[in-house]
Amino acid sequence: MQPLSCLSLKLDAEGLLLLDQTLLPHQERWLSCQSVAALEAMIKSLQVRGAPMIALSSSLLLAWLTEQGATREQIAVDLERLRNARPTAVNLMHAMERLRSCLDAPDWAQQLIDEAQRLFIEDRALCTAMATHGLELIATGDRILTHCNTGGLATAGVGTAIGVIRHAHEAGRAISVWVGETRPLLQGGRLTAWELGKLGIPYRLICDSMAAMLMAAGEIDKVLVGADRIAANGDFANKIGTYSLAVLAHHHQIPFYVVAPHTTVDSACANGTTIPIEQRDGAEVRGVSGRFEWSPADAPVFNPAFDVTPASLITAWILDSGVYRQRDVEQGIFKKSNGQN
Amino acid sequence: MQPLSCLSLKLDAEGLLLLDQTLLPHQERWLSCQSVAALEAMIKSLQVRGAPMIALSSSLLLAWLTEQGATREQIAVDLERLRNARPTAVNLMHAMERLRSCLDAPDWAQQLIDEAQRLFIEDRALCTAMATHGLELIATGDRILTHCNTGGLATAGVGTAIGVIRHAHEAGRAISVWVGETRPLLQGGRLTAWELGKLGIPYRLICDSMAAMLMAAGEIDKVLVGADRIAANGDFANKIGTYSLAVLAHHHQIPFYVVAPHTTVDSACANGTTIPIEQRDGAEVRGVSGRFEWSPADAPVFNPAFDVTPASLITAWILDSGVYRQRDVEQGIFKKSNGQN
Repeated sequence: MQPLSCLSLKLDAEGLLLLDQTLLPHQERWLSCQSVAALEAMIKSLQVRGAPMIALSSSLLLAWLTEQGATREQIAVDLERLRNARPTAVNLMHAMERLRSCLDAPDWAQQLIDEAQRLFIEDRALCTAMATHGLELIATGDRILTHCNTGGLATAGVGTAIGVIRHAHEAGRAISVWVGETRPLLQGGRLTAWELGKLGIPYRLICDSMAAMLMAAGEIDKVLVGADRIAANGDFANKIGTYSLAVLAHHHQIPFYVVAPHTTVDSACANGTTIPIEQRDGAEVRGVSGRFEWSPADAPVFNPAFDVTPASLITAWILDSGVYRQRDVEQGIFKKSNGQN
Repeated sequence: MQPLSCLSLKLDAEGLLLLDQTLLPHQERWLSCQSVAALEAMIKSLQVRGAPMIALSSSLLLAWLTEQGATREQIAVDLERLRNARPTAVNLMHAMERLRSCLDAPDWAQQLIDEAQRLFIEDRALCTAMATHGLELIATGDRILTHCNTGGLATAGVGTAIGVIRHAHEAGRAISVWVGETRPLLQGGRLTAWELGKLGIPYRLICDSMAAMLMAAGEIDKVLVGADRIAANGDFANKIGTYSLAVLAHHHQIPFYVVAPHTTVDSACANGTTIPIEQRDGAEVRGVSGRFEWSPADAPVFNPAFDVTPASLITAWILDSGVYRQRDVEQGIFKKSNGQN
């Protein structure tokens, strides 16, 4: 296999290395990943995260195991196991589907390895295409609110929402970013702040509950977020807190954009109500999971990892294939397989 | 002076003892407070917090210092210093005004001591009156969302919003509570969870960004919050995140109530735009202040301690003097001094 690398993944003959995203920004530790059980645990703990990155790391691990001599039967079992590692993000399911279709060929091993590598290379190109389309919507001086982490850590390329932000910055649009910290797991405060700092993009960190007053004060021009799954009617699931921002943006008449590759579209999913929402451990809300707990140890908790935003609150969907508006979505653009034209 | 005590304050001949609210729920440590400098520092660090409690601890400290023999001139200086300890909450300013008016009398010392004690006793009665009025609005089985901490820790009595919740629980209304954790300082996750647990009131803790999806799912019947200052037109300032909840409740057509004593009304303040909003240290947003920091150490931060909710988003104002609706506020109920009838 050819060596591949991006901000949070490295692949060579030795195997897969993944950047532990739970230790950022204070520590940059690479974890070796040579088994499905190890990757499953890393996905569950969010050491590996971001809908595209979960799909890519799973695909490349299967390719590497194939190269190491795993049987077709073993790969078929591993593939089903990884498909279920996170229930909400659909990119993983699409990637596993593509790899599964290789298993019927006589030269299945080479086909699967090639397909996994293709998924990685493609994802990089998808990011660039989204960023190029999204750039057209960004005005000079825009103050953009984003949520969670949607950049180089979450994809093979420049990212989804952060990819647009990065292209706008590099095009000299003099933008600045409001970063929502994204409780409970703080992907905004830990990861997006770190990435934007490295890229030299001006930002300010806020608690999620501060976005509303900034909107009322006229300090936010646009909201850009990523997605874990887009339904056929345009509803989408994304990190918990996204729906809250969509309602607030609607109330303040601020454009709200979702940025995602076509691999995030699930045409088989009619609308947002049928997207499964993962419930996570209460300890994440009682404190910073595994580190510091500030609430009563027995405090009952509700901890959904995602929420669903209805299509009616979305100004435009920025995909690698173009920018879609309400009318496009009503006409069924996402009802075609994978949202591809 | 007669001994006085409530959940977070004790006064006897030895002086004032205040419960350190930054160490709850894990540690119940009482701090001796014998000087204005000490109290100022405790207010700044939020060891003492809650708009009514700040006013009461300041008043009783001045009374105790008077009893210890402080001169009228010294008390006048101390009083001005405490008046400015927190800029947003108006209860403190009203209390200091009442004590200042004692200073002109020949027996100023006794008058000031009596007045400070009266403020404490009155606050307990105000809580009971608010809770009694608020109870009329609570239906059996109501699932109530609250924010920050507005209970026994913040007042001399049962509290403001939590006072209503507590009376409803004790009246057998079978209510349950959603507790917003209230980033950055986590008064919900640390203090309200602790208080409700002690009272045996069923609750579940959420991150602030989760309220919207619960509203969309029909899981929240009412929102009850406290206030730091109510302007003459009904706008009010409260803990950051309150405005966000008001917009979300409005969008989902969920009743939104503010509960406060008349001492929170500032008739001299025409509307919310003139309420000063305290900006606090960025370290509070970069982590859990002084304990654990998860963001880049140089991350730029925006950290307002309060936000302002416009009157138009409020279903009713629950005061000790009664329940007021939009029409009452339009007719100028809060334009009278201290909102008293």
